[in-house]
Amino acid sequence: MQFDIIKKTEFDKVLNSNLSQKQKSELFAAMCRYNCFVSVKKAGSGHLGSSFSAMDIVVYLYLNELNILELGTESPDRDIYFSSKGHDVPGLYAVFYALGFIDEKQLMSLRRIDGPDGHPDLKTKGIESNTGSLGMGISKGKGFAWAKKYSGSEGRVFVLTGDGEFQEGQIYESMQSTSHQKITNITVIVDRNKFQTDRLVDSINNIEDLSAKGLAFGWNVQRINGNNFDEIQNAIRSSKLITDKPKLIIADTVKGAGISFLESGNKDEHGELLYKWHSGAPDDEHFETGVNELKSRINKTSQSLGLGDIKFSFYEEFNKQSPLSYREYITDAFGDELCNLADERSDLVVMDADLSADCKLRKFEFKYPERFIENGIAEQDMVSMAGGLARCGLIPVVSSFASFLTSRANEQIYNNACEHTKIIYATHFAGMIPAGPGKSHQSVRDISLLGAIPNMTVIQPCNSLEMRLAVRYAVNDATENVALRMVIGPSPRKIELPENYSFKFGEGTVLTSGNDALVFAYGPVILHEILSAQEILSQNGFSLKVVNMPWLNKIESNWLIEVCSGINDIFVLEDHSNFGGLGDRILYELVRNGIKFDRFEKIGLDDYPACGVPHEVLKYHRLDSHSLCERITSKTIDKTESNHIYSVEAPQ
Amino acid sequence: MQFDIIKKTEFDKVLNSNLSQKQKSELFAAMCRYNCFVSVKKAGSGHLGSSFSAMDIVVYLYLNELNILELGTESPDRDIYFSSKGHDVPGLYAVFYALGFIDEKQLMSLRRIDGPDGHPDLKTKGIESNTGSLGMGISKGKGFAWAKKYSGSEGRVFVLTGDGEFQEGQIYESMQSTSHQKITNITVIVDRNKFQTDRLVDSINNIEDLSAKGLAFGWNVQRINGNNFDEIQNAIRSSKLITDKPKLIIADTVKGAGISFLESGNKDEHGELLYKWHSGAPDDEHFETGVNELKSRINKTSQSLGLGDIKFSFYEEFNKQSPLSYREYITDAFGDELCNLADERSDLVVMDADLSADCKLRKFEFKYPERFIENGIAEQDMVSMAGGLARCGLIPVVSSFASFLTSRANEQIYNNACEHTKIIYATHFAGMIPAGPGKSHQSVRDISLLGAIPNMTVIQPCNSLEMRLAVRYAVNDATENVALRMVIGPSPRKIELPENYSFKFGEGTVLTSGNDALVFAYGPVILHEILSAQEILSQNGFSLKVVNMPWLNKIESNWLIEVCSGINDIFVLEDHSNFGGLGDRILYELVRNGIKFDRFEKIGLDDYPACGVPHEVLKYHRLDSHSLCERITSKTIDKTESNHIYSVEAPQ
Repeated sequence: MQFDIIKKTEFDKVLNSNLSQKQKSELFAAMCRYNCFVSVKKAGSGHLGSSFSAMDIVVYLYLNELNILELGTESPDRDIYFSSKGHDVPGLYAVFYALGFIDEKQLMSLRRIDGPDGHPDLKTKGIESNTGSLGMGISKGKGFAWAKKYSGSEGRVFVLTGDGEFQEGQIYESMQSTSHQKITNITVIVDRNKFQTDRLVDSINNIEDLSAKGLAFGWNVQRINGNNFDEIQNAIRSSKLITDKPKLIIADTVKGAGISFLESGNKDEHGELLYKWHSGAPDDEHFETGVNELKSRINKTSQSLGLGDIKFSFYEEFNKQSPLSYREYITDAFGDELCNLADERSDLVVMDADLSADCKLRKFEFKYPERFIENGIAEQDMVSMAGGLARCGLIPVVSSFASFLTSRANEQIYNNACEHTKIIYATHFAGMIPAGPGKSHQSVRDISLLGAIPNMTVIQPCNSLEMRLAVRYAVNDATENVALRMVIGPSPRKIELPENYSFKFGEGTVLTSGNDALVFAYGPVILHEILSAQEILSQNGFSLKVVNMPWLNKIESNWLIEVCSGINDIFVLEDHSNFGGLGDRILYELVRNGIKFDRFEKIGLDDYPACGVPHEVLKYHRLDSHSLCERITSKTIDKTESNHIYSVEAPQ
Repeated sequence: MQFDIIKKTEFDKVLNSNLSQKQKSELFAAMCRYNCFVSVKKAGSGHLGSSFSAMDIVVYLYLNELNILELGTESPDRDIYFSSKGHDVPGLYAVFYALGFIDEKQLMSLRRIDGPDGHPDLKTKGIESNTGSLGMGISKGKGFAWAKKYSGSEGRVFVLTGDGEFQEGQIYESMQSTSHQKITNITVIVDRNKFQTDRLVDSINNIEDLSAKGLAFGWNVQRINGNNFDEIQNAIRSSKLITDKPKLIIADTVKGAGISFLESGNKDEHGELLYKWHSGAPDDEHFETGVNELKSRINKTSQSLGLGDIKFSFYEEFNKQSPLSYREYITDAFGDELCNLADERSDLVVMDADLSADCKLRKFEFKYPERFIENGIAEQDMVSMAGGLARCGLIPVVSSFASFLTSRANEQIYNNACEHTKIIYATHFAGMIPAGPGKSHQSVRDISLLGAIPNMTVIQPCNSLEMRLAVRYAVNDATENVALRMVIGPSPRKIELPENYSFKFGEGTVLTSGNDALVFAYGPVILHEILSAQEILSQNGFSLKVVNMPWLNKIESNWLIEVCSGINDIFVLEDHSNFGGLGDRILYELVRNGIKFDRFEKIGLDDYPACGVPHEVLKYHRLDSHSLCERITSKTIDKTESNHIYSVEAPQ
């Protein structure tokens, strides 16, 4: 198979034609959908459903409303457009390519280290705001609008939001304050495509009646078909006439609009609608079907408009996907063990913030519907609700991505903890891998964010067995709150633990013996790297002691003393910032216990996590096995490529 | 003067009388207001306005609705009542005393280490939920209600909220999910007393039309006069009949209802209404006036109802307040220097979350109204708005209390920071003192919460001069984000810096020379303690080197090497958790730079900060000067009391 793309010259042909604005927009949007579709397939992941539902609105704005093509992307008088949900950015990149903001190589390097990020980042020309965690967009837009007025700059502000996003409280904070502060130079368009991650918004946490909410918060409200250019045009034009209120346009759209199979949900085994194209790339078969449908639609339109065929140019060959061999997902064990525990005790309750499938909670959801609380994208509410549950003697397991849960709901976690109840926080997508979604999703601050809560134990299991033991410990044995830190993707290798392994509080496990240096690490991603490094080093006569340390903030002194005995060089490898992770804890325990060493180093992140495929991101941060060899030995190591077996990226 | 209280026997007299429920409630509420007023005066701080506006509702619930008197405070079938705003708890304690939950000594030990906290904590009998940071209550109540249904327990759930609280997004998150999840066994009563910290809610960030909002979120809505027992009764009774929706009762009340001078606002110099009794105790004159008015009102009512006089019993003498001698408030310098900088540059913008007076922003607010953005209690919205402002080239100074700003808006701060703009976060009320408000307000996690953001400098100035230099550095020189960490109360001593002091990046200042041990510390509270310790130790022949280190996460290696030269024992004293503060940074720098030492210790908090007056809280945590002497020398020191000169507590 091959990737064909539509080159910029073809878009120019459309723009320079004599077609009406509406005709140009329609054709342009279809062509952008095509390039977006190809770029996501090439990236291996990306959010097609949302990119496609919003495409007509985005194209309408860039071709007909925004003054950016005229003034450029740096003028203080430019119109501002950005998407608050952010994950529709593959669609935006396709538009940016068509408009000449980014080149062909960038378009086709989506989610790669030298390409545009999986969520918007200012490094890409045309991006106005970094987004990716939901709910911040109206507030940021309000800032742009206020600054324009204060500075006397021209230009309007348009913010696109998702519909699931209206479950985040910040949306209402910003709706209220925007109206109160009389910031009227802002138009918010809700891409009301009906589905959030994979279920209907109405079913997860209904946001309707959105019009009534908009009106109650003092906004001018219109509701339109957001895949109809006439209606988009009318709405934007009438919103211009409103000068005394901020403006809300609720645009009913079809998720995946533009390719038939992307446009519909499938019923799950319980008859509820599931949408399977929220994130992730299509398989080869669907890709071919989608490409053919888009090509045919584009040319049909183009021909009917008298423009002839649109040219699809060869970009590169690609190999058909081979099915993945078996991999261990630690989170499978998490979801499964929760079910086992629920069989044993009725006080276990699971809470989800619209990530049930990603966090492997579906089994629990179906098996124990009466104990599964779907809370939607409202992490603060979810966490505080867990506080109430725990006060009534239940054991809530609160699940979401680590970056959202530990940060957005940080104060709520603290508030619960100070009641001295027990709550288990299941923090998924911890660490820097998968790195495609970008820094809004990669969680490298979460250990630090929980560390100063006095009664909070943070554990990261290295494999499925340890995962099961950790969940059991958290539910049955722990006397304080527990955060379970989990890698979301497949483990690059199955970490082997000793036979009859027992999970002892504050104690790790020696995985390889050695005395030239000692490395503490945790979780399968960096354990894989350091074990690969150990293998390379052992061939070079350097014996490295690798210790799996799942207890990230609890360390038994006697165990530490024993494990460090006879070692001079000690390293802590972090799948986290160098600040506030395991390293700070280990170092203080070493010093407190009078353990002598010559060298101590934390090897983690000092910068934002890069976006890319795993091996390039690990290499970028010098956390891949070869770099680790060099950092540990302070020598250059032969650069035979290590065998990185990553490929599946986690969605949101 | 003296404190007289109304003893429980007098409340029993009312309860056991033949009066109607309404008559009992009215008299009981007036009597509770009296005891509340006295307890707050004795504590020296507390929230009278809110305690009084809510009193009629609270008394109505406990006397007429809740089954707690019957079932006790531990029964799973009990009705649940708690206040989400939490700062009205002095009123609740007065009710608890009247009902026999707490004794006279506890009532009169408000905000003391052995008494009830300034915000609700489960340690006090009858308290159902720890609250104090706003917006969490409905979510927590929803948890109680869900658990009751799941467990098959009886009992209803009542949550009281403030009106300013409806600026927090979590309120709307929880309104939406409660309705969606069909949790109907919950009644939320909004104490709509019109004023938030010291201004009208309508003027800070208008929340109306609240009824329309409630309806739009799918709740049953009633609006009543919340200081009228007939209306309260009718509303609660009709809400019982609603079984298909959660129930919202908007109770219009008068802030401070019950004492004339507490009931009204005063116009400020710009003609805007200010309310001066949100927090803080009345001065002696107002106390006397208030006591007389309440006594007379209580007895008039009691007599008219045929119960004769209510007895006011002597509790203890107290000395009239003497005016405070001059004290340095570091935050005065902060507010003043901001104005100076604003004179110099037009790109400086200040944002506030309803704490302008406490954070010393009034001067700026009046001088530069066009550059002062009042955002209400909506920290996330404020921070993200700052992101938009910064993207337009402005320099926003975002101000609130450290515990709220760095925690509630943590993800928003991260999101802004990853855009590589510059924003200054003014984090007030940092550290454990004043300790009266309790652990929701004492900020001992904030350094750790910002530490893993790569481009964030955290600075805590020790005196007014350093404060001014730090603000100037942040605004004029810093190339990355800056968090200014500030003690909110008066400095216990003015920390003296060298003449011609210059503020150098990453370098602290040696305040006292010595070579028996070295202590790094920051901020006036703990510097006062360690300097006092140094004075005691020097009399015992122990020479302590005390270093003021305002750069909490940036340390210049060469300076550190020099300052540690010849020292064996190194301590870092933290006004913060032992985790994630200055100590972790210093230790790693010591090790990284090969600086040798025999002993290293972090001296900070390993537990939640205690509530009490400063000296007892410092002593409790062994952070007072005498304890510090012992911890540093590992010897017992003569216990002559050090001269702690704290008294003013910060409100919220």
